[in-house]
Amino acid sequence: MSWQATVLTLFPEMFPGPLGLSLAGRALETGVWSCRTHDLRQHGLGRHRAVDDTPFGGGAGMVIRADVADAALSALDAPKEMPRVFMTPRGYPLRQKDVSRYAQGPGVVLMCGRFEGVDERVLNAHSVEQVSIGDYVLSGGETAALVLLDACVRLLPGVMGSHESGVEESFSDGLLEYPHYTRPATWQGHDVPEVLLSGNHAAIAAWRQKQAEEITRERRPDLWSAWLARREKNEAATGLSGQVRQTGL
Amino acid sequence: MSWQATVLTLFPEMFPGPLGLSLAGRALETGVWSCRTHDLRQHGLGRHRAVDDTPFGGGAGMVIRADVADAALSALDAPKEMPRVFMTPRGYPLRQKDVSRYAQGPGVVLMCGRFEGVDERVLNAHSVEQVSIGDYVLSGGETAALVLLDACVRLLPGVMGSHESGVEESFSDGLLEYPHYTRPATWQGHDVPEVLLSGNHAAIAAWRQKQAEEITRERRPDLWSAWLARREKNEAATGLSGQVRQTGL
Repeated sequence: MSWQATVLTLFPEMFPGPLGLSLAGRALETGVWSCRTHDLRQHGLGRHRAVDDTPFGGGAGMVIRADVADAALSALDAPKEMPRVFMTPRGYPLRQKDVSRYAQGPGVVLMCGRFEGVDERVLNAHSVEQVSIGDYVLSGGETAALVLLDACVRLLPGVMGSHESGVEESFSDGLLEYPHYTRPATWQGHDVPEVLLSGNHAAIAAWRQKQAEEITRERRPDLWSAWLARREKNEAATGLSGQVRQTGL
Repeated sequence: MSWQATVLTLFPEMFPGPLGLSLAGRALETGVWSCRTHDLRQHGLGRHRAVDDTPFGGGAGMVIRADVADAALSALDAPKEMPRVFMTPRGYPLRQKDVSRYAQGPGVVLMCGRFEGVDERVLNAHSVEQVSIGDYVLSGGETAALVLLDACVRLLPGVMGSHESGVEESFSDGLLEYPHYTRPATWQGHDVPEVLLSGNHAAIAAWRQKQAEEITRERRPDLWSAWLARREKNEAATGLSGQVRQTGL
């Protein structure tokens, strides 16, 4: 059975968009996944099919109504166990492990907000997960939904070839990946790091590990602290930490 | 002068994609911004216009060659002071303040990778910023570029109307935003929090602040710690912290 994406949006024509091409596009054509949209507007109220109203308590922006969002969520025939996800900067941060979880399931229902957000009651009533792709604000949830789907689809069986594989290394061990180099070995006077041409696999692995650690420390102090804490815990568990302490290091 | 996006990609047909519609689409039509693509493939080598090769030192995946990427970057007529940004999970995390910085400038040149990445030498030689939109792996930089552009374009002068404004509240003070509610006041037996109907602006502001703090503590321990540290520092600066300590709280 193919992995099923259902997107609830005011802009159904944005999908599959970029995911109709390249890796995800081929997987869509061959039926590895499907991408359906459901237009929130068809559940709008009155002559103008209004989906939103002003927020109780005042403030800028408009809020999508609970009754409208409920009608849309209730009209979907997606299986009950399929995660319902609302894309919002207020959500839990999306991590690669969440992507794996979604990819291993039957699919996802993604709800894209516009304006200020969605009435919180409907999100609770439908057990909708609130997910953020990063600490910035978008014009709506649609580009965030494309990102989440892109991340999931590449993990589906048969989607990645040898060309695309292996990119998991960033995040899989909690460090950013080491830098990459390819031919030509000398480009405009810049040489590839010599060790990479040595054929010494142990030396290459050690160099790459050191680079990954340095890049993570520099660019991601948050990941670096977490990695140090995990290493310390592991060393304590294996008694290594004690040895190091005894030698005064 | 309009804000200028230039995207270097193997899939130029992915742009403007979803950004050709809604807010960003209207802004594109009215010339608030422009979106040009530059096909990396046209700088490929040989009969097959190869852009990549295997990584020195071994490992899975393919790496975009320095000479190919350099030819593409050198062929652009984008102003020298315009930021060059490579979308990669190895990058510095994109934050709302980076988005503001890009939006306030003349535009951006976005480089989208596919495969394992780009030869590091060319990124250094062209002073390319490495930016990550989040801790997950995509099939390429294109959906990440769409996200970055979406975030920037909504900040350009005249793009947001009153419908869309105010959404900055998440992140602007370091807390996630409070929940939103709109009509109907009672929906399927669920009432809107009473305070929001009270008309008491001070009580509403206090309730929202408390909600924002609770949601941030629950969903984003990282932002919460940073916010607590800032508050403590501010209180120390104003002498409040000392007073609190004296009363035993």
